[in-house]
Order: sequence, then C-alpha cells, then structure tokens
Amino acid sequence: MNDISEMNIPGSGAMLIGGQWRRGSKGPIYSSDAITGEQITPAFNAGGMEEIESACRLAEAAFDQFRETSNERRATFLEAIATEIEALGDVLILRVMRETGLPRPRVEGERGRTMGQLRLFAEVVREGSWRGLRHDPALAEREPAPRPDLRLRNIAIGPVAVFGASNFPLAFSVAGGDTASALAAGCPVVVKAHPAHLGTSVMIAAAIESARQRCDMPEGVFSLLIGADNDFGTRLVSHPYIKAVGFTGSRSGGTALMKIAAKRREPIPVYAEMSSINPVVLLPHALQKRADAIASSFAQSLNLGAGQFCTNPGILFAIEGQPLDRFISSVSQAIADLPALNMLTPAIHETYAKASEHRSQAARTVARGANAAATFEAQACLFETTAAEFLDNADLDDEIFGPASLLVRCADENQLRSALSGLEGQLTIAMHIDTDDYPFATSLLPICERKAGRILVNGFGTGVEVAHSMVHGGPYPATSDCRTTSVGSLAISRFLRPVCYQDMPEQLLPDPWNERMTEIE
Amino acid sequence: MNDISEMNIPGSGAMLIGGQWRRGSKGPIYSSDAITGEQITPAFNAGGMEEIESACRLAEAAFDQFRETSNERRATFLEAIATEIEALGDVLILRVMRETGLPRPRVEGERGRTMGQLRLFAEVVREGSWRGLRHDPALAEREPAPRPDLRLRNIAIGPVAVFGASNFPLAFSVAGGDTASALAAGCPVVVKAHPAHLGTSVMIAAAIESARQRCDMPEGVFSLLIGADNDFGTRLVSHPYIKAVGFTGSRSGGTALMKIAAKRREPIPVYAEMSSINPVVLLPHALQKRADAIASSFAQSLNLGAGQFCTNPGILFAIEGQPLDRFISSVSQAIADLPALNMLTPAIHETYAKASEHRSQAARTVARGANAAATFEAQACLFETTAAEFLDNADLDDEIFGPASLLVRCADENQLRSALSGLEGQLTIAMHIDTDDYPFATSLLPICERKAGRILVNGFGTGVEVAHSMVHGGPYPATSDCRTTSVGSLAISRFLRPVCYQDMPEQLLPDPWNERMTEIE
Repeated sequence: MNDISEMNIPGSGAMLIGGQWRRGSKGPIYSSDAITGEQITPAFNAGGMEEIESACRLAEAAFDQFRETSNERRATFLEAIATEIEALGDVLILRVMRETGLPRPRVEGERGRTMGQLRLFAEVVREGSWRGLRHDPALAEREPAPRPDLRLRNIAIGPVAVFGASNFPLAFSVAGGDTASALAAGCPVVVKAHPAHLGTSVMIAAAIESARQRCDMPEGVFSLLIGADNDFGTRLVSHPYIKAVGFTGSRSGGTALMKIAAKRREPIPVYAEMSSINPVVLLPHALQKRADAIASSFAQSLNLGAGQFCTNPGILFAIEGQPLDRFISSVSQAIADLPALNMLTPAIHETYAKASEHRSQAARTVARGANAAATFEAQACLFETTAAEFLDNADLDDEIFGPASLLVRCADENQLRSALSGLEGQLTIAMHIDTDDYPFATSLLPICERKAGRILVNGFGTGVEVAHSMVHGGPYPATSDCRTTSVGSLAISRFLRPVCYQDMPEQLLPDPWNERMTEIE
Repeated sequence: MNDISEMNIPGSGAMLIGGQWRRGSKGPIYSSDAITGEQITPAFNAGGMEEIESACRLAEAAFDQFRETSNERRATFLEAIATEIEALGDVLILRVMRETGLPRPRVEGERGRTMGQLRLFAEVVREGSWRGLRHDPALAEREPAPRPDLRLRNIAIGPVAVFGASNFPLAFSVAGGDTASALAAGCPVVVKAHPAHLGTSVMIAAAIESARQRCDMPEGVFSLLIGADNDFGTRLVSHPYIKAVGFTGSRSGGTALMKIAAKRREPIPVYAEMSSINPVVLLPHALQKRADAIASSFAQSLNLGAGQFCTNPGILFAIEGQPLDRFISSVSQAIADLPALNMLTPAIHETYAKASEHRSQAARTVARGANAAATFEAQACLFETTAAEFLDNADLDDEIFGPASLLVRCADENQLRSALSGLEGQLTIAMHIDTDDYPFATSLLPICERKAGRILVNGFGTGVEVAHSMVHGGPYPATSDCRTTSVGSLAISRFLRPVCYQDMPEQLLPDPWNERMTEIE
C-alpha cells in the first residue's frame, strides 16, 4: 500500500495557487499514516503571508468574471470536478485510507457523496432560482409619487476561504460541500488544506485544476494553500479580499475564526459547523415495544466512523422505569460487541482517550466496547447519570469527539423537558417514539425546534442526506450561524447577497433578466 | 401646540412591559422640543436590569405560542397595529413634529409609510412563502440506503431587540420596519425607545398594545423599554433570551452592538443599518445634456429632511470638463437657494456643524445654502476635492449626517473607477447617465454591485420604496450584514431560521403542512 499511496501526489509537495504549483518556504510537514502514526511522503512545504496574498489576489481578480459566468458554464465546471475526482481512481482511495484510517467502503461512499454534492449544485445552478429574481415594475402614474422600476437579484458575496474538515477528507474538505456551494454561487475559493490529509488535498486540488482548465475558468477561481500553524488561518480569514468563511471542525477552532472575522476592518460571515452532542430522546412506549432494536441501532450509530461524525449521538434522555432498564441491558450487550475502530489522527485519539477517561470519573460507566487492538483505536463507551446530576454539572454536556455517549436518567417528563431545555444548540435531536408517545412528543417538539437544525423521528442523525430539505445547521455552538445549512442545496444561499437595480435601462441590466424572468409581484 | 403635544401621552412617563405600564426607577428623563431645545413633559423614568429582565422573560414566554399563531392571525395583528396608529390621529402627528422638528407633510407621509409597511408584512405573512417549505419524500427502495422523508420550514429565530432610529421616528422606530418584519416572522419584540422621541414612542407602544389586546396575542409579544444610557442597550443585547437585534443609527452605535453580540455566550445576528455616503456618479454625456436638471434634483435630495437620511447623497464623482463646469455653476445656485432646515436634535445639529466645519478645512467650499435662522437649523453645503486628494485623505469619505456633500473631480474614467473602488460599502450608488454613457456605465456596474445594496440610474437614493425588490442594505459599514435588507418584504428573512423534520409522522408535523403544501423536489 505504501508505494501506491505515496505515488501520484501532484505538485511534489507544493501547493496550488491559481493554477500554479508553488512550494512554500516553511516546513517540511508530513501527513501521517493514521494506523501506524508514521510520517508518509512526500514532504510538503507550508506557505506564509506571501502565498495567502497571491491566492487572495488571484481570487479577487477572477471574481467579477467568474460570478457572471452563465449558469450552464458553472454547472459544467462543477460536473467536471466530479468527473476528474472519479478519474483519480483507486490511488485517491488508497491515499485517503492511509491518511485517515477510514475503511475502504466508507472512503468509496464518501467519494460518491462528494461527486453527488458537486452534481447537485450543478443542478441547483442550472435551475436558476438561486438568483432570487424579483421585479416591481414602475408605476409612473402612482400618486403622490411614481414608483420606480425595481429589480432584485442575488450575486456572489466574494472570494471564500474554506477550511477542510478532518473527519470528511473528501465530502467536507477541498472539493466538499463548502467549496461546491461557494463555486455554485459564483465565489472563487481559497482552501486551507487540513494537515491530517495533505496528500488527499493536493490530489483533489489537481482534479479541480484539471476541470478548471478544461472549462476555461479564470485561474484564481481556486487555490489550495498549505499552512503550518493557526496563524496561517488567522491571516487568511483576515485578508481583505476574503468575504466569507466556511469551516467544519472543533468548537475552539470555529469560535476562534468567528472572533477573527468579527475583528476585521470589514467583518464577514463565518459559517462554522462546530460542536453538537445530538440528543436522542427515548420515549417510554417506544422503549416498551422496541428496546432491543433501538439499542442495537443506537450502538451502530455511536460507533460509525469511530464516532467521528458531527451528528454522533452523544447523549440519551429517557425516563426511569422497566422499559429503560430493558434498554440498558440490551444496549450494554450491543456496546460490548462493538469493535474498537481506528481514529483519524493520533491527536484526535489522545483527546478522545482523555475525555472519555474524564467522563468516566464524572458519570457511571454502563458499558464499554472491545478493547483497542492497535495504538489509535477508540473503545466505545456509554456512561450514565441522573437528570439532577446532569443539571448540576455543566461539564456533562461537553462534546466528546468519538464513540462515547451519556445516558441521562430522568425521573419524569418534566425533568426530561428541563434537561433538554438546558442544552446548548444542536445539529440534530432524535426522538424515538411510538404512537402512544405522541402527546409527550408533541410537548417536546417546540424545545427541539428551538435547539436543533434537524429533528428526527425513530432514527439517528449520523446519516446526513444531501437533499433540498436538509438542514445541517442549528443554533450556536452547533454552528456559528443558525440561519443556514452546510449540507444540501440551501447551502448556496450562504454565499449570496441581494442587489437591487432601480430604473436600470434594459441595455445595462445584468444577464439573468436577458435569459429568463422569474418575477414575483 | 404645547398643550396638545404634551397631553395624551399614555402611561404618564412609564414604559410598557408585556401589557403593563411600569415606571422605572431612574431618571427623570425628558424629550426636547427639537426647535427650541426646551424639555417637554411628561417626565419619563428609565429602567434598568430589572425591566430588561421582565420584558425578555415575557418575550421568551410568549415566543412558542406567538411563532405558531396562524398566518391569518399574525397578519390581522399587523393590520390592527396600523389601524391603531391611524386612530391616534393628530395628537401623534403633533408630538412627532415637536420631538423631531420635522414638518407636518413629512410626518404625515411617514405615518402612511409606517402603516403601509405593517400592511405589506401582513400580506407577506398571509401569502405564506416566507415559510420556505421544502419536501424530499422518502425513497424506501433506494440503494444502497433508503432516503428518509425530509421536510424543511423556516421558523422564527426568537425574541428580537429593536433600537428605534432618530431619523425615522415612526417608520424605523417602535412600530417601524424592524418591528413589523420581526412580528411578521413570529418573533416577540422588545424595543428600546430612542431618547429623542420618548413621547412618540410610548404613543406607538400604546397603539401596539391596543392591537395586541384586540387580537388576543400573548402579553410578552411586545415591550417598550426606556433606558437612560448605553449600558442599558448593552444589557438588552446581552440578554440570553434575545436572539437577534435590529438597529438603525450611527456607525459607532452599530459596531458597538455588533461587538456586544459577538461576545455573548451565544453570539446572535445583528442587523445594523449604519453608515453610507451614497455615491452619485455623474457621467459626461448626462452632464452635457442635463446639467441643470441634475443639479436641481441633487440639491433637493441633499436637503431633504435636512439631509438626515441614510441614503443622503454625500459624495459626487465626475470627470473634469466643460459639462462638469456647467454642473458646478448650476448646482452652486441650486444650493444657495436651499433653506436651512431644523435638525432632529441639538446633538445631531452640533455634530453636523462641527463635521461640516472640519470638512471645509479639508476641501474647498463650492456653495452653501441659506444661513440658519434658528438655533438648530443646518446650512446645506457642497465641497469639492480632486480624486488625487481624495485617495490621499482617508477622512474625506467619512459620513457627515446632514445636508453636506463632497464633489470629487476626476481626471478621467480610470481615476473615477479607482476612487469609486476605494470606497467602503454603501446603501446606494446612483449613476446619472445618457445613452452615450452606456459603455462607461457598463464598466462601473461591477464596482457598484460589489459596493452597494442598490444601484440607481438617473435618480437619488433618498426615496426608499417599500417593495418586494427593495434592498436597503449593502456591505459593511452600510450595514452589519450584507446578506439582507431592512426595507421591503425580503426583510422578514432576517428573523427566520430553517428547521428540517426527518421521518416525522403526519400527526406530529407542524401546521403549514396541514394548511398547504408548497413543495420543491
């Protein structure tokens, strides 16, 4: 595997700045084999302010042209990126596996999802309603004053900085959801590669570059930067040409970017998807009827991808009683059967080991999965506490990134509602219910709506469908901006702003009004 | 006039908190007669943390019920507010005139605009597309995994704090655009009264309260707070129950609120409409043909409302030559003919006097209007500078709130484009053009689009139409959030966030899906 995954890394350790491979002056830095922890070649050189400046300048130079390319051309570009990623073939899959420790089916699935996202945004661009066209025709005779002709369209917000996520090396990294939606909106993109998968990042960058050349898009439409430290990210977000930021990662990382963006001379939007413990509420009748089935599917969801999903079910709420006892007995067995899985990076593994050890001191251990057989594997674990203890201990709702969850035993419905109401913002809340639970579930719905971007019934949040109706968002700290989503077609709206044209002569009106007229009166 | 405008102030100097008139413990504070500067009765008592806590707690308590009222009920409530404002009759008009110094036709016009806004949002609520409904039906047979049923709707973001504007005592104050759009979205509103028009504020609050009672809305849906200092606003924006902020005012005030909101434990969106100098670009052929007409309409726009509009034309760009000379001669006469008009408050007048004096030292004076005949009147003035000087002196694009403008003489098209490109974000940019100017205008359009929320041809920004296609927004510092508008029906989107419902049984689905299905596939 070594040979293949170290071959075919384009650029020989350089980064891609506006169509040119360019080697930074810092480093060398390396990705690691996620399973052995060993450095893997090639050596990459990190850049500094000079590379940020070049990438941002080229993005700025490309912006006016790119944002006014036709919907058809931009859609074709997105599709070409998908095709070029597919064309990378197994070499890409092997490199991702090596850098992340994720198993082949997951990596292949994620590649499919990444191409699917690019193609979905191609459809969204072609369909055209993202422009949000509106028209109030002139009323020349209106009293006391005539109404001017008013037209509104959305335009791209400007060059976007994207920070690749460690846990989705393809679907939320270099050509992931943020990049796809920003390009769809007409924004040039400057990606900062995630240091955990540098090889994967440059391979994807090369695919985007091939597509860019094939589609004759301006050079500055895309750059991939490699930076060695947090200061690099700070400087990128601070650059005056950058007009929005996409980020998926930790709460500390996301809030740091929010602060940097707020301190700029011109503050800009930050779309950070950060921290969520994704409550699962187990209602009594559902437990009564399906304790075993729920226990089994919960355990699978918990351990999926070694628990390294933003939507991992990190907390359970249920009411004391025989159905809950039955669930606990069943879930203990299901968790005991869970294999230890390799984590994405040694640092993530270390943080998980410490956090789950810390949690085991603050809460009782219900069950543990198989012991780790390799250095960076994570042992699944379920802890429990009472609602009273939970409400007293603010630490207990901190996210643990990995396959750990906490069961909160509630005395009654009121206590469950209180515990749920006290939570911070979430990406998802799942309710497991039976028809007899509907009255209780109805009373929980307003709480769920105010806490989360997505409410699921009888499922778990770990499958995030890329669809028109998806909301992968939610109140802080789930995200930095609860008005948007980072998965699904609505994500394009993050990178748009409305402009009004008043009494503009037809000859000067911008393109969409020449192509189509979707007016609301 | 005194007697009438001091009569009929409901609450006898108290504030309105969730349907109860309540007197604060601080103060007394008074509004002033804008023309004489004298204090006018009644004395108002300002509140502190206790009143903020009560208002926010009631807003929070009302939120779940209010956000799920039917579209029809919320629309009726908005219309009832308009009716109750109208029913205040001439007593309201007189109080506004006294507190603001604005002339009767303007105040009557603004009352009409305020009622029109409320009725427009009633229409928007009834029409229903603000819910943004989407539906991806389940695909049970899909391979490799079935697709769940996914539905999306927008819900209200939460209780909103609104800061009334001094320059629109009705249309952007207690029942102004921010309040109307927030209530339309289903958000309870807590208004901080602008200290310059306390009597107007409580009269409008009483009208809202009558409408609330008539429409049987929960008490906490609306509160009017009176605060004596900036700390009061800080505490209101910091309150954890407040989920968004609407503000119209100065750059320093808006940026202060942005900082407070960003520092909260849960950061929240701030919609601040702040600072704009609204460039007017005079193209050569337009000046050649219509120098006198443009000069005359510019002068009228400049002095409208004593220049106290967010969209006041504070800067002009033109290219040197005979047409510009002709314009200067014509505009000098037009400005000399402008009467001095009373400003909103003594403090605004003082700031204007200092700022225009300061500007007269940094730029040459072209023309001045009539001298002030009363203490708080503003003399209109036009200054000029060269593009080279303008690019060298960062102070020259600072907003002067009042009837002052600066003409920037450019050597050629390139220099004009450079000067325009160097500006900060704007609410509006106006181009005065003739057909022969189209090629030059076309080259300016991308610059205008990136700088401003609204681009006007052959007009001035001072008339802001309340319409579906209006954008009263623009990049920072014109506003704090260029993705939105504070005037027009699109403003409702500021107070909404999307929620996704996955596999939700029909019996639990929220209302809109029982009322109507507007699906996109």
